Amino acid sequence: MKITSLQENLKSGLFFVGHIAGKNVNLPILNNVMIEAKDKNIKLITTDLEIGIVALVRGKIETDGVFTVDAKVLSEYVSLLPNKKIDINKKDTSLIIECDNHKTTIKGQAADEFPLIPKVEKKEYFKINSDDFKKALAQVIFAVSPSETRIELSGVLFDFNKDNLTIAATDSYRLAEKKIKVETNGSEKKRIIIPAKTLQEVIRILSAVKAEDLSEKEKKVEIYVSENQILFNFGNIELVSRLIEGQYPDYKQIVPVNKETEIKINKSELVRAVKAASIFSKTGINDINLDFPIGKNQAIISSASTQLGENKSDLAAQVTGKDNGIVVNFRYLLDGINNIDSEDVKIEIINNSTPCVLRPDKDDSYLYVIMPIKQ
Amino acid sequence: MKITSLQENLKSGLFFVGHIAGKNVNLPILNNVMIEAKDKNIKLITTDLEIGIVALVRGKIETDGVFTVDAKVLSEYVSLLPNKKIDINKKDTSLIIECDNHKTTIKGQAADEFPLIPKVEKKEYFKINSDDFKKALAQVIFAVSPSETRIELSGVLFDFNKDNLTIAATDSYRLAEKKIKVETNGSEKKRIIIPAKTLQEVIRILSAVKAEDLSEKEKKVEIYVSENQILFNFGNIELVSRLIEGQYPDYKQIVPVNKETEIKINKSELVRAVKAASIFSKTGINDINLDFPIGKNQAIISSASTQLGENKSDLAAQVTGKDNGIVVNFRYLLDGINNIDSEDVKIEIINNSTPCVLRPDKDDSYLYVIMPIKQ
Repeated sequence: MKITSLQENLKSGLFFVGHIAGKNVNLPILNNVMIEAKDKNIKLITTDLEIGIVALVRGKIETDGVFTVDAKVLSEYVSLLPNKKIDINKKDTSLIIECDNHKTTIKGQAADEFPLIPKVEKKEYFKINSDDFKKALAQVIFAVSPSETRIELSGVLFDFNKDNLTIAATDSYRLAEKKIKVETNGSEKKRIIIPAKTLQEVIRILSAVKAEDLSEKEKKVEIYVSENQILFNFGNIELVSRLIEGQYPDYKQIVPVNKETEIKINKSELVRAVKAASIFSKTGINDINLDFPIGKNQAIISSASTQLGENKSDLAAQVTGKDNGIVVNFRYLLDGINNIDSEDVKIEIINNSTPCVLRPDKDDSYLYVIMPIKQ
Repeated sequence: MKITSLQENLKSGLFFVGHIAGKNVNLPILNNVMIEAKDKNIKLITTDLEIGIVALVRGKIETDGVFTVDAKVLSEYVSLLPNKKIDINKKDTSLIIECDNHKTTIKGQAADEFPLIPKVEKKEYFKINSDDFKKALAQVIFAVSPSETRIELSGVLFDFNKDNLTIAATDSYRLAEKKIKVETNGSEKKRIIIPAKTLQEVIRILSAVKAEDLSEKEKKVEIYVSENQILFNFGNIELVSRLIEGQYPDYKQIVPVNKETEIKINKSELVRAVKAASIFSKTGINDINLDFPIGKNQAIISSASTQLGENKSDLAAQVTGKDNGIVVNFRYLLDGINNIDSEDVKIEIINNSTPCVLRPDKDDSYLYVIMPIKQ
């Protein structure tokens, strides 16, 4: 194998594929990146056996070939080089890398033992604007369960229904749901669960690609789904991941359909008051009180600790319906508020022992549900 | 005690004093900040028994008094409040804090058990421009020994001689020394050792005070030294620290007075080459080779690892004297280069088994010495 590529192209490709490599002690070849020069394409490939990432790198192939070297070593080295032409040349069991006045030999392994990246047939596609998709993922993914006791909850639900995609996640204490539009050439409904780690990697890739480098058409993420794999294609990057098997819980059951009290309140004022109350909430329980006395158009955010003291903030709010109050975990509440993208937040309450709902003021595509802390 | 202060003044005062509070499990009162309203001054005071910090805060005193509350709780709470007037009122064993529509009660302890901050007499002073002082400290403090086996080396030497101050630190593998000018009304020589932690706190304070808030006169740090304490005064902040007892080693002995080879080399090129070589240096030893073949005006930076591979960079350099080479720890070398504030770095070598010296190209006030790794 003998190839040539500009430093910035190689560096960028290694950035995209490098993150998932290098965390496996039992199978050291997974620390490596596979460099493949074939059919006029230079590809960088890494996998952690659950996710596989392939980056197409611009460059010139003099001789075809394939080889693997430690991804971290190659990546660190390439990022130190000046942005000039890099010559990469496989010789025996090493890569010789030459650039300007720098010369390096990195020992590597043959590609025979490198795991295959599963193929996903590119037939039925879903296309989404990458910025919208990235934002939607971020609004939901934080609610995934960190525990693996219920494997379905460690993933995010993607519910495709024609040109509608509903994304949802819950750890059974709170739930986030976002609806977005997709383009598709298919008509089948699909309900799949994607590992949170996969989507974190997708967010990482979407955030790193410079929007100005892409044409309007390229600003779309393409998604293809097979029986147990999903493929995301964005720019020169392909990411393939396994899906989580199992049935996602029917979460709609716990989303309240009615409300007794509706509150509209300024988002940044609410954040400030919740944070102030959080200082005096009980460690581990993280409880703070929300009270909405009717007729006063006030929200009272408070907390008390026998050791530290107590706090109370009175905020102006629009309160309709009846007198109400609820006790919630301030961390869950802040997570929800921070993902609501409007000046005012709407809170809907039935009573202090049923879930409450948070929504943006004028946008029905997002909702966030929190279980109350029962007193 | 009853006082009033603007949120930004209180927040800033708490920022300066808060950092050293809250790390003591055995003496919980050290987690507290003492608020003292007396003689028309509002003071915030914290101590960790080695360092004491006093911040003068602008505000109005209605009733004198003194009280202590958890520094972290107060600081977190105050930073969440809007920048408006804050009323602080001691009632029984609590502080009542009111601001706008927020009201908080923080429980506290009486000031009786709060340790006294040692007094340092303000007689013989040394004054230094704060920016120069901060920069000089940063150029030296990193070379302090992290181990406490030789207590003197865990501090930084301050050697005052009339209007000259020499600051030095070493961990016996490398040494950094910086000379700066001071103003003084005294004539006595003083050679003292200041704990590195104290100087880190001084750097933190100097970095946080906004230069534009200070008059030219205020841009000076005042230093007062007593038998076993040192006082730094800067703006509204006073920091008192114990000194380290003992004799600082006579480090001048190990600074070479002659050289066989002198090299002048571009700093950023050298950094790049050292980092590239570092990837292939032996873990724990961190060895890289510097070679300066005479007559070629080249610096060859290289390293080799039996596992990973090897690296070599040829850099243009001005080499005078005789053929030479040395093996050094790349971390120590990078620390030194990064603290040299000029486009070119000067390296002076005798041979591969004696210390080598790094200097800025045209500035005799700084020097850095590295012990070689003997082969």
